Amino acid sequence: MAGSSQDKLFIPRLAVIGVGLIGGSLALALKQAGAVGEVVGIGRGLANLETALRLGVIDRIESDTVAGVADADLVFLATPVLSLAAVAARVLPAMKPGAILTDGGSVKGAVIEAIAPLVPAGIHFVPGHPIAGTEKSGAEAAFPTLYQGRRCILTPTAATDPDALDLVRRVWEVAGSEVVVMGVEKHDRVLAAISHLPHMVAYALVNAVGAYDRYQENILEYSAGGFRDFTRIASSDPTMWRDIAVTNREALLEMIEQFETHLAELKEDIRRSDAERLYEFFLRSKQSRDAIL
Amino acid sequence: MAGSSQDKLFIPRLAVIGVGLIGGSLALALKQAGAVGEVVGIGRGLANLETALRLGVIDRIESDTVAGVADADLVFLATPVLSLAAVAARVLPAMKPGAILTDGGSVKGAVIEAIAPLVPAGIHFVPGHPIAGTEKSGAEAAFPTLYQGRRCILTPTAATDPDALDLVRRVWEVAGSEVVVMGVEKHDRVLAAISHLPHMVAYALVNAVGAYDRYQENILEYSAGGFRDFTRIASSDPTMWRDIAVTNREALLEMIEQFETHLAELKEDIRRSDAERLYEFFLRSKQSRDAIL
Repeated sequence: MAGSSQDKLFIPRLAVIGVGLIGGSLALALKQAGAVGEVVGIGRGLANLETALRLGVIDRIESDTVAGVADADLVFLATPVLSLAAVAARVLPAMKPGAILTDGGSVKGAVIEAIAPLVPAGIHFVPGHPIAGTEKSGAEAAFPTLYQGRRCILTPTAATDPDALDLVRRVWEVAGSEVVVMGVEKHDRVLAAISHLPHMVAYALVNAVGAYDRYQENILEYSAGGFRDFTRIASSDPTMWRDIAVTNREALLEMIEQFETHLAELKEDIRRSDAERLYEFFLRSKQSRDAIL
Repeated sequence: MAGSSQDKLFIPRLAVIGVGLIGGSLALALKQAGAVGEVVGIGRGLANLETALRLGVIDRIESDTVAGVADADLVFLATPVLSLAAVAARVLPAMKPGAILTDGGSVKGAVIEAIAPLVPAGIHFVPGHPIAGTEKSGAEAAFPTLYQGRRCILTPTAATDPDALDLVRRVWEVAGSEVVVMGVEKHDRVLAAISHLPHMVAYALVNAVGAYDRYQENILEYSAGGFRDFTRIASSDPTMWRDIAVTNREALLEMIEQFETHLAELKEDIRRSDAERLYEFFLRSKQSRDAIL
């Protein structure tokens, strides 16, 4: 593939399975860049696919998954994490020789463990995860610049074909992402830290405050902007986060314990009214946070 | 005071001690409403006061606190929580008969305990707390609409004069706030829940993720929009939050324990891979959160 990075990327036929925010936005980005011929939309919800067609996110609806992927050069699996393996099991035997399957699942270890053994000879599997998203979902939420300036992590296995990896890397670069290749375990631990843990904390926080009933009224009513911003991610899709919590269990438990240790340290400083240590704790956090502004 | 609510509010002279986001924004709101004659700015930082004067937040700088409050009808204490009592001790003996002292401290129990015994006969003290703010500080951050649509909680004591309470209520209403009167203990517990706890959680979260060194790199670099939004409040002023953590210790420890209980429940559901309970936990949280959008 020497020199291939210089050629303009062009995917004659892309099949997107699950045309929501993630799948739809990749289709729109590639269309806008002129990097794709036809986009075939596949999924369970016909109304959503019709919306996608009307909005120009896809060019054709295919209700039969097997028929939809048969001529695709690239298949992008963008369904919820827990469904990826079952969908891949149907899709992989129907793909044409040399075609590439990639996915956008937020957890990689469990997904690869389930899908890798199903990949036939001649078909390439490139596991991926674009780190982007909003609280919104569905084809209507898709927009072509979702991935611009974001990172996309690819986690190839020992069996992943280098040319297939290179093509998927270029797909995400064309969509505007910075592509990072890393090991599966590292991906799952890093994501547990920067994404999965914060979601667990936000969900637990809202439930803790919502359940506080000393005054027999919903004290969430008093919350101002800070609380609302802080807890926005607790509005995320419960099904998606159930799947992530189940599939990234080990890394998530490790990070929850890491968090509990730091909260316990802070609690002890409060209990002892240790103003100096409290100031240092808050300052350290502010400095880390300000560095990623 | 029957009928007084119909009269247009007018404060001939307002003294603001601590002309930052909180103090400056109240001055601007009252000026914009034509509800104040002269605003005297008092504070330790001359550069900040000069900025406030230049921006029209105040009409006059007074470097001598005692002289600055002598002719004021209303004195608004808007300095950090831990400094309120010391400032009040200097200010109260210098105030003219019938004048009112109010404050904007985020914690009320410790502040009232320290200030109430110092209030001379003929001077009125109305403890208050506008629930508003941003991560910014200083006179430059002040703007006249900060308090619009926000709640302001007043926590009168048994000694608080009803007319003085009424006047301070009208001040905040003119600034655009909905005024709620509640007991001191309730204020401190509600604020611990909706504001102080989330800040502690955000600070602990950033420190936990920042300290994660399994990969000898700063994994905060991978964080996307969700993490950045979620942890914005960890950029807040460490001195302010040290003061709050020290002065609202008891209510904050109670809420941290409430939070720990919910996080432990979630952790146990993850450990047991209990998909049904996880879904219910996330859904309950999402529903509470969506209700305050």
